Amino acid sequence: MVEKIKSNKNIPLILITNDDSIYSKGIKSLVEAVRGLGQIVVVAPELPQSGMGHAVTLYSPLRLRKVSRFEDIEHSYTCSGTPVDCVKIARDMVLDRKPDLCISGINHGSNSSINIIYSGTMSAAVEAAIEKIPSIGFSLCDHDLNADFEASKIIARKICTQMLAHKLPNNCLLNVNIPALPLNEIKGYKYARQAEAKWEEEFEERVDPRGKQYFWLTGKFKNYDEGQETDEWALENGYVSIVPVKFDLTDYDNIQYLNNNWEL
Amino acid sequence: MVEKIKSNKNIPLILITNDDSIYSKGIKSLVEAVRGLGQIVVVAPELPQSGMGHAVTLYSPLRLRKVSRFEDIEHSYTCSGTPVDCVKIARDMVLDRKPDLCISGINHGSNSSINIIYSGTMSAAVEAAIEKIPSIGFSLCDHDLNADFEASKIIARKICTQMLAHKLPNNCLLNVNIPALPLNEIKGYKYARQAEAKWEEEFEERVDPRGKQYFWLTGKFKNYDEGQETDEWALENGYVSIVPVKFDLTDYDNIQYLNNNWEL
Repeated sequence: MVEKIKSNKNIPLILITNDDSIYSKGIKSLVEAVRGLGQIVVVAPELPQSGMGHAVTLYSPLRLRKVSRFEDIEHSYTCSGTPVDCVKIARDMVLDRKPDLCISGINHGSNSSINIIYSGTMSAAVEAAIEKIPSIGFSLCDHDLNADFEASKIIARKICTQMLAHKLPNNCLLNVNIPALPLNEIKGYKYARQAEAKWEEEFEERVDPRGKQYFWLTGKFKNYDEGQETDEWALENGYVSIVPVKFDLTDYDNIQYLNNNWEL
Repeated sequence: MVEKIKSNKNIPLILITNDDSIYSKGIKSLVEAVRGLGQIVVVAPELPQSGMGHAVTLYSPLRLRKVSRFEDIEHSYTCSGTPVDCVKIARDMVLDRKPDLCISGINHGSNSSINIIYSGTMSAAVEAAIEKIPSIGFSLCDHDLNADFEASKIIARKICTQMLAHKLPNNCLLNVNIPALPLNEIKGYKYARQAEAKWEEEFEERVDPRGKQYFWLTGKFKNYDEGQETDEWALENGYVSIVPVKFDLTDYDNIQYLNNNWEL
């Protein structure tokens, strides 16, 4: 049976999750990155959950299993659900207090611009921010299973140290994307806005052995934004992009537009 | 085999989807609400997809099946995936042009305030907006399978007529929530902002017949926002709430904060 941990009140409590599963190299790298900054608790998906966005599991029960996955980390658990489920169940059933920091990743592949909406990694970080937990999602722009996270580890530690020291205003979290470069080729950090970009979908049509049609989702990422203050620009030019993110989706400018132009 | 339809270029092309599945009363009501406003094509989930957020299906193939579900509507399809998959596959494999309007719902249950983030209904509408399709999500504040959609149908038709006539600036969609009241008790329409509210989760812990622990996600919705310009206020006071929504999640105010306060 999983029971609530007794956290050490004298040091920061750090919750770590991701969407590539607890067995990915990215989350192992994130654990290594912040080792020593506080008490680490990992609650991460049992199975890969990329593209799960902000999904929660309503139609089936969740399982939580204690696992021995990371050296020196006593409290590591897999959850059978989505990344957002992991944050919810960690907060409610594993942690005895609100963590001082929630970090998600390091994702294998970029979560810049519109990808934040599809990303399980970022949705876990958003969920933590809804709970008013300081939170950051980290992604490396390299999809490879064995991607090199050495530079990312140093960068993630630096950013987490800042977050523990300075916090951020409530309801704001960070989307950090790291170019796939060695540390000495990374030019620095840019606070950026989400670029206007999207996926140009193409479904690949196939026929199964029984003659029935099926489709695989594929697509190409296209950046339509020429702004130099965007996350895409930062990444293309060798910078780590840091986008402050909010989850109030209200389009305030258009409340006035509707009042002026619509007749209901 | 599903093939692209030949749309009538002389009338608006209206794509309808939802998250409660094509067999729900809510989507049938939405089809009835807009009948006659244009050519209707329905692509909706085969199975309920509540709480799927902006999930896309990456790990399994998708099926698309033509079904006979709505009177007089030639083009109705079920998709085996999520609401966002429905919009993507409709755009790419079913429709021969960009629709003039995408409407999602009518959801059985509110999608006001933070629920927009978890809602498959709203995520489908967001996906359409990313594709620059004018788009609206509709929800009735009544979870019942047999909820009374009569007032909602009149309201949805009125709002869709406005949308077809006036459009909205690019990258803006609408989140419409309708109180569960008869039409003559609804006080009017309010353009509103997303209230600051959240779910207070409580996992219900159970033990399976083999002695293993499992959890069901439950929770209570709590509104912490006392503002009268919010969607929650509008609904509690008998108004239809209309929140203009955007999918650029950048917290612009905090770019400056980071530049001033963080040292990386």
